[in-house]
Amino acid sequence: MSANSLAVDVSRIEGDRATSKQDEVAVEEPLEIQLCSAQAAGAAARSVSITMRTPGDDEELALGFLFSEGIITTRTRIAAVTRPGEPDPVTGQRNVVRVELGPDEPIDFARLERHFYTTSSCGVCGKASLDALRVAGAQSLAECATRFSREVIAGLPDRLREHQRVFAKTGGLHAAAVFGPDGEIVLVREDVGRHNAVDKVVGALLRQERLPAHGLGLLVSGRASFELMQKALVAGIPLLAAVGAPSSLAVELAREFGMTLIGFLRRGTFNVYAGGERVV
Amino acid sequence: MSANSLAVDVSRIEGDRATSKQDEVAVEEPLEIQLCSAQAAGAAARSVSITMRTPGDDEELALGFLFSEGIITTRTRIAAVTRPGEPDPVTGQRNVVRVELGPDEPIDFARLERHFYTTSSCGVCGKASLDALRVAGAQSLAECATRFSREVIAGLPDRLREHQRVFAKTGGLHAAAVFGPDGEIVLVREDVGRHNAVDKVVGALLRQERLPAHGLGLLVSGRASFELMQKALVAGIPLLAAVGAPSSLAVELAREFGMTLIGFLRRGTFNVYAGGERVV
Repeated sequence: MSANSLAVDVSRIEGDRATSKQDEVAVEEPLEIQLCSAQAAGAAARSVSITMRTPGDDEELALGFLFSEGIITTRTRIAAVTRPGEPDPVTGQRNVVRVELGPDEPIDFARLERHFYTTSSCGVCGKASLDALRVAGAQSLAECATRFSREVIAGLPDRLREHQRVFAKTGGLHAAAVFGPDGEIVLVREDVGRHNAVDKVVGALLRQERLPAHGLGLLVSGRASFELMQKALVAGIPLLAAVGAPSSLAVELAREFGMTLIGFLRRGTFNVYAGGERVV
Repeated sequence: MSANSLAVDVSRIEGDRATSKQDEVAVEEPLEIQLCSAQAAGAAARSVSITMRTPGDDEELALGFLFSEGIITTRTRIAAVTRPGEPDPVTGQRNVVRVELGPDEPIDFARLERHFYTTSSCGVCGKASLDALRVAGAQSLAECATRFSREVIAGLPDRLREHQRVFAKTGGLHAAAVFGPDGEIVLVREDVGRHNAVDKVVGALLRQERLPAHGLGLLVSGRASFELMQKALVAGIPLLAAVGAPSSLAVELAREFGMTLIGFLRRGTFNVYAGGERVV
């Protein structure tokens, strides 16, 4: 057992035969993300999200989540990232991350209660979701000159597989990775939640002061939804490649914000849904 | 194009060749779920959730969500389910569902702000998530006498595939289905979000007055997470079978509440992670 997988007893059924064996399952535990101002540390820390995640890279997850939601930016001064609370009796992991902002940093708590998906003008719809992103300050990436070759894109799944250690054991983790135009995987994160895997990647890039990441592409092991495209957009990543299918709103977002969206990336072939000029 | 899939132009890349074609993608649009008391309809309707979903069965989705969260029960008198607002300019669908409860029904709005994942006694951890379910009134299903044969379980993926019409077109939808001990699929719902697909199934069962569904099993096309197990538990469904992998907390929940959990249900074989006595 490690922090991110757990051995359990299972009964394997094949036709008439049942065999007892051990199987590794991906660990899923709640993580609470707290936010506070350094001057008011402790008492004023406020819980902003609880997500079910696979332990590991929790601080990056918290930072990436806050960045994707627009609560912190590359200019936000972060005083400390701490792990309050008791360790979990089963995993030994602490399940709280507290992000303390510099004393002069304003915290827009109200922003957490506003939704990206609705505007007062035209109500709830896909168009409003895209408009709301623009209102929130998302910039078009149409001018971003980074290019990726077909060969590099076609080879990504094989390169990702080499890095997916926990998935190989459990079959139960999503992966997200960023890669350069040369096809090198810059970093990979895994999680039971695909949005968490992307948040971990974005948080790691933020810590390494690599945001906005105009020179990188994002690879995800599952499908491409509106939410994942939004996270790539806010991080300034001009290309998202998904092993699975995209949704309609992911395609619309990509077209509206000058991003490249690739889907069904398997066995050396793929579909380009938007931004084909970036694939050379 | 139908309400749940949309044709888009794509460029298909295979080696050196690029061919233009049309591809059907699964529609993803926001849905706002509102709740109000019949006596105060209109002004006092409160938004309780916005979820990104595939249009179709929206009313069942809203009812299933409210049921899974414990906001409504089988005994709640529902005065009306309405679709306020303007149709979406692209899909023609309305993106709001308003559930109006009977005038004497109390609405526990505060419950929506409490989390299943944390308790005041021991903070945030997997154990607390399970304890919180019990505090919220979830009953063990250990006494539930429904049994399913190995043959029935092994045959479920083939039966599900016959019902997954939109998935077949788009490759982009999760499916959830309930089935009886004879293997017959009782109903199937599809959605870009796997939790939405399960909420649609639970909402449909609620409307048909079939909850708690002690005599049925739940089949999901993806992985088994804590959240999906929780929805099955609250609906009284004693068995969940997933085509993909289970998480650690899904296994713990199943063992704690006397449920059967099956994973990696593929090509006639499967793993039993909990509740093997129900598989005969």
